[in-house]
Amino acid sequence: MGTALAQAFLAAGHPTTVWNRTPGRSPELDALGAVRAETPGDAVQASPLIVVCLLVDTTVRDTLDGIDLTGKVIANLTNSTPDQARVLETTLSAQGATYLDGGIMAVPVMIGGPAAFIFYSGDSAAYERHQADLAPLARPVYVGKDAGLAALYDIALLSGMYGMFAGAQHSLALMQGEEIPAVDFAEKFLIPWLTAMLGTVSGMASDLDNPPAPGTAGSNLAMQAAAFDNLIDAAVAQGVDPTLLAPVGDVLNKAVAAGHGDEDLAAMVHLLKTNG
Amino acid sequence: MGTALAQAFLAAGHPTTVWNRTPGRSPELDALGAVRAETPGDAVQASPLIVVCLLVDTTVRDTLDGIDLTGKVIANLTNSTPDQARVLETTLSAQGATYLDGGIMAVPVMIGGPAAFIFYSGDSAAYERHQADLAPLARPVYVGKDAGLAALYDIALLSGMYGMFAGAQHSLALMQGEEIPAVDFAEKFLIPWLTAMLGTVSGMASDLDNPPAPGTAGSNLAMQAAAFDNLIDAAVAQGVDPTLLAPVGDVLNKAVAAGHGDEDLAAMVHLLKTNG
Repeated sequence: MGTALAQAFLAAGHPTTVWNRTPGRSPELDALGAVRAETPGDAVQASPLIVVCLLVDTTVRDTLDGIDLTGKVIANLTNSTPDQARVLETTLSAQGATYLDGGIMAVPVMIGGPAAFIFYSGDSAAYERHQADLAPLARPVYVGKDAGLAALYDIALLSGMYGMFAGAQHSLALMQGEEIPAVDFAEKFLIPWLTAMLGTVSGMASDLDNPPAPGTAGSNLAMQAAAFDNLIDAAVAQGVDPTLLAPVGDVLNKAVAAGHGDEDLAAMVHLLKTNG
Repeated sequence: MGTALAQAFLAAGHPTTVWNRTPGRSPELDALGAVRAETPGDAVQASPLIVVCLLVDTTVRDTLDGIDLTGKVIANLTNSTPDQARVLETTLSAQGATYLDGGIMAVPVMIGGPAAFIFYSGDSAAYERHQADLAPLARPVYVGKDAGLAALYDIALLSGMYGMFAGAQHSLALMQGEEIPAVDFAEKFLIPWLTAMLGTVSGMASDLDNPPAPGTAGSNLAMQAAAFDNLIDAAVAQGVDPTLLAPVGDVLNKAVAAGHGDEDLAAMVHLLKTNG
């Protein structure tokens, strides 16, 4: 990912100094005009804006440990949790830095392309000052001053994605061994169906903002809980481990037991909140 | 649902006889010209094609028990599992019927509209004969002679949908209490992101049909398993019960432990198969 980010800066004509834990890594950057720093301290001194993308949060702390960051803006795009980002902001601020946290919504090949975007949070003045500098990497989306917000948005989207993938994996497992090729099943049926059902996701969100009147659910949770057993029974009969889907039935049953049987899917969202 | 189906037949000009366990149910059908049968036996005698939509599989057996079905085509659209459909085909064939099973991919308000479709399986000649008769209900999609296939396709799509909903519910729970309204988060971020990630579902299906060379995974399972802990940690820190998402981490770790760390998401599909 670091290579992709540096390439995008260089392609946009930004003078770019690079440092990697492995010296000489990504030789393709030299041909594009990258300046190589010997140490993280040298890399920090070279520019007013330092983009950091390392393995994990602790790698960032170890790499920047003891370096004077006075007057520098650190845009940290390393995968992290909201809490890690908040703690890192405090640590690096104490070293003199202004902190921006970023969550990259792309794989490396998408960097610099039209579909990629990066959530940013933290110091709003630093974001305003460097928004145009950061734009060549991916479309920047600023989500707030709390340094943890970029990671929260990032993780919320990744979590939604893994749920969708889990449903698709279970669905494809059910059809493995049947006559229809998986691609035909996915492209003729599963993907169009999931696309159509995204309207229900929108309705669920709307119900969270504006709770509907009781008893107006189109397909209430009591009905859905009763029908859900068929999905698990059919998976077992078809030789598919229902582990990815089973918790949905548990939460449906829990919602009905808690008196939400006449409500819709948004009630399950409230039930997931452990802090009220 | 029964009312919606009868309305669609009547709206298309089909002479339609109706029976419901509760006499006089759905009075709106009378104005459309429905003929009311006193008993299930009377309803069966009235037409060559009998569409059945009841609560559950056992309701269908109880309702049709002991009735002579000689020369009749039964299209059973009741929610059922593949095995229930197969057993019912045997039972009703012994009573003289030709059996079609159907899986309705719609809620009642969608019946007769452009987005609804119904999977059918079972006797192909009966399907050919009645395809045009069934079309006013919803677009018919025939998936094979095995009577259980319509329920299998139906359940595969519903399972995929519940996975996507679970991801969305977890995602929306993470953002509850943040400043952004749920609808804004869903419509600006979550839904466009899930739509973009449907391309990965297509890639997963393609990998099932044509397994890629080892080591060519863009984002391999070992990397994904390592990063997944952040999603669970962030959920707990944000006050969200990770129950819907946790099994994804379990299957990721199981895949890595089984030696699939350098493969992509399709490897998890194989791991869900308990019958090899």
